[in-house]
Amino acid sequence: MHVVGEGAAEGEALLKAALGAVQGEVDSCFDALLPIPGDARARLFEAMRYAAIGGGKRVRPMLLVETAALFGVGREAAIRVGCAVEAIHVYSLIHDDLPCMDDDDLRHGKPTLHRQYDDALAVLAGDSLHALAFEILADANPIPDPFIRAELVATLATASGMNGMAGGQVMDMAAESESYDLHSITRLQQLKTGALLGAAVEMGAILGRVPPEGRSHLRAYARDIGLAFQIADDLLDVEGDETLAGKALRKDEGQGKQTFVTLMGVDGARDQARALVEQAVGHLASHGDDAATLAALARYIVERDR
Amino acid sequence: MHVVGEGAAEGEALLKAALGAVQGEVDSCFDALLPIPGDARARLFEAMRYAAIGGGKRVRPMLLVETAALFGVGREAAIRVGCAVEAIHVYSLIHDDLPCMDDDDLRHGKPTLHRQYDDALAVLAGDSLHALAFEILADANPIPDPFIRAELVATLATASGMNGMAGGQVMDMAAESESYDLHSITRLQQLKTGALLGAAVEMGAILGRVPPEGRSHLRAYARDIGLAFQIADDLLDVEGDETLAGKALRKDEGQGKQTFVTLMGVDGARDQARALVEQAVGHLASHGDDAATLAALARYIVERDR
Repeated sequence: MHVVGEGAAEGEALLKAALGAVQGEVDSCFDALLPIPGDARARLFEAMRYAAIGGGKRVRPMLLVETAALFGVGREAAIRVGCAVEAIHVYSLIHDDLPCMDDDDLRHGKPTLHRQYDDALAVLAGDSLHALAFEILADANPIPDPFIRAELVATLATASGMNGMAGGQVMDMAAESESYDLHSITRLQQLKTGALLGAAVEMGAILGRVPPEGRSHLRAYARDIGLAFQIADDLLDVEGDETLAGKALRKDEGQGKQTFVTLMGVDGARDQARALVEQAVGHLASHGDDAATLAALARYIVERDR
Repeated sequence: MHVVGEGAAEGEALLKAALGAVQGEVDSCFDALLPIPGDARARLFEAMRYAAIGGGKRVRPMLLVETAALFGVGREAAIRVGCAVEAIHVYSLIHDDLPCMDDDDLRHGKPTLHRQYDDALAVLAGDSLHALAFEILADANPIPDPFIRAELVATLATASGMNGMAGGQVMDMAAESESYDLHSITRLQQLKTGALLGAAVEMGAILGRVPPEGRSHLRAYARDIGLAFQIADDLLDVEGDETLAGKALRKDEGQGKQTFVTLMGVDGARDQARALVEQAVGHLASHGDDAATLAALARYIVERDR
């Protein structure tokens, strides 16, 4: 990891510790949510555990937990809501990896779910994780306020559905035949990747009882890192190491897709990603040192190797 | 349709009118929820409309609307919440029809979604309808009370996920290799079909602000019709007319599956379904004539030809 900019070294140490903690807590939370039943559903639960526990970077739960921490939210509630967002992310990866979609064999350095089990179970494990996200959010434990629960559900459902992640995925599929310009690619990626990253930040603020008008700087931060995240993904697809990434790369080129890299070039894309990150960090200024981990996370997003 | 029992003729006329009305209102609601956007997501929305508008019997919205009506709930809210339940039902049919699942070509008398479009779009249209269900429930319009919204979300998410419909589907897939007894088949069907039918009734009562302890007779009604519904489905698979049903039949036999019919015989299964329906109707006694449509719906469920 090569973190750039001011305070990079402390930022990197801070982030490593914080990410490690969140990864452990998210794994524990999924472990508790998915006890293997003593009936024929055991295989479903095993498949859900295979996909949800271990392996992920947990960027979305981290964004949520760190945003919530700015407003004094208890960690247990934030981790649990973070698991709801991560459940949506994991289900989307399972479905994206299917033969009829991206047909990927490797995810987080191990066989994709449909390779390890079968396509039918991958569809149903994804669907079950999708439902689990809303089961988590609707539970009065640990979020007793129903107004907060309902707002969390609305935010996550919108970010994941036809006007968010799934809609972006359909635009992305069309990208193989249509030739998108920079404006269209930006819009596509705001839906496909940005919506769920933005929801993670927004849901942290909702847990913190921040009214919508007090969230605009956080939305701006999320928008910038969402775009930077996708540009970094496009760069990784061109320049990354498959072993480190734990998944297949060089896919965009094979599919003849327009990406930020094809439209801006490698150097232009990297400059743009870094500029977006510095802009994102600027949006956090009012929080001072409290937002140091969110700032470090923004820098990590463009410099990561997986 | 051959309705049996007391008051059958009025029941049938009542039900026909009521089902026709709900079908029209559900179609209008989906039409309003799914305006085709002016970008590359148009194909996704068209696919969602293809699956969601027209064709369905709308048994679940009907159960919800009629239960809600017992407690004076406004029709607009009940129809909207009914569309959330139906969105889950429709998404599950889309995914069940996929080549890697049941590989069906025909649904409601027209090509299944993946035959009309492609497998990838069928996965994503299903996922988008899944998210849409929770978008509907989390919306403050037309349900201003966040406590009600959160309870609706919890009920639907549980009924659709690993401890409900999706879990039952996995047990059903295993039924081809395992040989289930009547107890296991009953448990399987309570999850696969019963959970969502039960959620529809329960959600009608939630909208009507009936506390959990006041819902036990409605839960009993729902449990009985859920089982009767599945027995009728198994009978339809053996005896039905494919043209009337609008889908492929004689599938259980080909897969060597145990069903209520293989375990009880055709006559035993029919007797059991009718007994369950009369028991279900008995649970509605305290509501008198107000529950006439729910009683007629219970009878329709076992006598339907599609």
